[in-house]
Amino acid sequence: MARKNIKSHSDVVEKKLVGVADSVITAAQRNQDPTLSIPVRSLANVNFNEKRGIIEMGRRKQARSFFNVGMAKKFMQTVLVADALAELQRANLTTSLREIYYRTKHTIKNSHENTFDGQNESDPLIEDLEVTLEALREELHVRAENSGTVVGPLVLVDDGDRVDCTRLGKGGYSVPSIVEPEYIQISKCTADFVLLVEKGTQWNRLSEDKFWRRYNCILLTGNGQPPRGVRRLARRLHQEYKLPVYVLVDNDPWGYYIYSVIKQGSINLAFESERMAIPKAKFIGFSSSDPDRYGLPRNVGIKLNDKDINRARELLKYKWFQKKEWQNEIKGMLSTGLKYELDALANKDFQYLTKTYLPRKLKENDWLD
Amino acid sequence: MARKNIKSHSDVVEKKLVGVADSVITAAQRNQDPTLSIPVRSLANVNFNEKRGIIEMGRRKQARSFFNVGMAKKFMQTVLVADALAELQRANLTTSLREIYYRTKHTIKNSHENTFDGQNESDPLIEDLEVTLEALREELHVRAENSGTVVGPLVLVDDGDRVDCTRLGKGGYSVPSIVEPEYIQISKCTADFVLLVEKGTQWNRLSEDKFWRRYNCILLTGNGQPPRGVRRLARRLHQEYKLPVYVLVDNDPWGYYIYSVIKQGSINLAFESERMAIPKAKFIGFSSSDPDRYGLPRNVGIKLNDKDINRARELLKYKWFQKKEWQNEIKGMLSTGLKYELDALANKDFQYLTKTYLPRKLKENDWLD
Repeated sequence: MARKNIKSHSDVVEKKLVGVADSVITAAQRNQDPTLSIPVRSLANVNFNEKRGIIEMGRRKQARSFFNVGMAKKFMQTVLVADALAELQRANLTTSLREIYYRTKHTIKNSHENTFDGQNESDPLIEDLEVTLEALREELHVRAENSGTVVGPLVLVDDGDRVDCTRLGKGGYSVPSIVEPEYIQISKCTADFVLLVEKGTQWNRLSEDKFWRRYNCILLTGNGQPPRGVRRLARRLHQEYKLPVYVLVDNDPWGYYIYSVIKQGSINLAFESERMAIPKAKFIGFSSSDPDRYGLPRNVGIKLNDKDINRARELLKYKWFQKKEWQNEIKGMLSTGLKYELDALANKDFQYLTKTYLPRKLKENDWLD
Repeated sequence: MARKNIKSHSDVVEKKLVGVADSVITAAQRNQDPTLSIPVRSLANVNFNEKRGIIEMGRRKQARSFFNVGMAKKFMQTVLVADALAELQRANLTTSLREIYYRTKHTIKNSHENTFDGQNESDPLIEDLEVTLEALREELHVRAENSGTVVGPLVLVDDGDRVDCTRLGKGGYSVPSIVEPEYIQISKCTADFVLLVEKGTQWNRLSEDKFWRRYNCILLTGNGQPPRGVRRLARRLHQEYKLPVYVLVDNDPWGYYIYSVIKQGSINLAFESERMAIPKAKFIGFSSSDPDRYGLPRNVGIKLNDKDINRARELLKYKWFQKKEWQNEIKGMLSTGLKYELDALANKDFQYLTKTYLPRKLKENDWLD
């Protein structure tokens, strides 16, 4: 992306943020009650759009106004947060949710009252601004942790440095929290697909065995529930390079959930699905039928506990798990009463994942949609 | 390190592991009771060596023999684990603790008994073998998570790839779990010091601001309590390139503890201090006196809870915190009743850490030893 576009994009976001303050001033000058109209972020305002395959927000909005005893403090806080976010845009800096809380915290003049008493007061306001201004958190320059890693036939440009992900050994490139085009440019990608691996331990196995070279893929992990940067990178590779995305998770309700968040977004952050979700992502395993198919002994399975069982039953009811294959998948787990970690494949052989399991899965197109 | 040395080092470790099985066979052939002599890994066998500045193991050993009803199963398990570890050496693979558990788990023939029922049975045996064979876990090819990141004037060679850590943008190189010379070679390092940062959020700030370029240092983080790979890399840079290591942590008992583990090792893994600890590491902050010195308002401090207070009092008694400066440091925290996160520096300015706090610390040599 050309430098000019990047700058103008940042200008747009800054203008939106400044607009929040402007609307207050304009209203005050007209002796009107300053009011913000904020989309409602609650379960009641969330739908699963079957056609698009994503969880999305409805159209309900709520007014937040200054001359309302119940809303005045929150209104003031919203403006303070918008101001801090505008500062980030102007200085071209990124920061964390926590630092925004600290930045905007002070004691109100001639009082003992703090602008904010805890981060739990500032975080929701950042989400409010995201939905109101239709700007991703990343576009507001707010980062989360960066605990993702990538290797494979992919060249990124980060701060002007050309990062060739085929030349980073086993270790790989540490995926930043913000991978928006403003910060990270994808300059080359010759891979056939993305393999998004839940846990670092399998990613390490695949990286050590140079699986990406043999199968011409991009190996990506978030070391657990994938952080936003990892999801956004997968989404960009999917969208900009039309790469299929295969998700490899443990065989437990948590694994299904991770997959579903990658695929259609989450209920809590429904407004982000639009630019985070990958509705065509495939679940490549670990499937309930795999232990039998790959001859794993039952004693490497782990007994489902009550929490697992309840969670699996909840998943069975989700609209996005209504396909017959998915019902069978989840019911299969419940019927054996066992869950399996991918690590259990080591029972066969330390390299079973690389040399047998995934090659066969890919050859047989054995995945769920 | 030349390829030959690497191979011969791996041979040595493999021989040690095979030796465990051999000693069993030899004893059996001589109609003797096969016995392993294992150093005792308990608090009673741990000392702080003031002269060397590290926590180290004493010389007590215990016998583990096969013809002893109470020890037979554990003996058999130890041999199984040694066998799996030897397999890793022969195939030149690395794996996780969890996979070793799965690899060695099976049902004993003609019985319903498992070799292992949980990973809590195999993990301690790996530690037993580490101390018995005097081989670091990394040398046994057992990895932990890799959640560390590095940037700065440092060139590593990983799997034959030359990784220049000045050319990896803001994201950086993902530090692998195993950074032994067998896997990672340091081919160039022109830095003046290592800055080991507890949290990713400060590391991101420093990386974004290219602090490493201005202060010619290596920026390293483990995103929390530093994982083994990060500690080993810092130690190697300290030892092989004589770089001072400065540790930047939050101002709380947990921060002091993280620093102390980096510096003199931990009680639980005392046998590793020898090759993990950095006795000359300095604590550069966040110090109890910093909030006053840098004019932070008290309302960004967090009230110490009972757990914090008890932990701080425990730390006061540790032999390695007996220096007057350290007693003042910890008592300073207790007397204000407040702890501070580094994130709170954002209260002054988003770049306060990079532009004011650390430059002044470095200029004034303001650190604790």
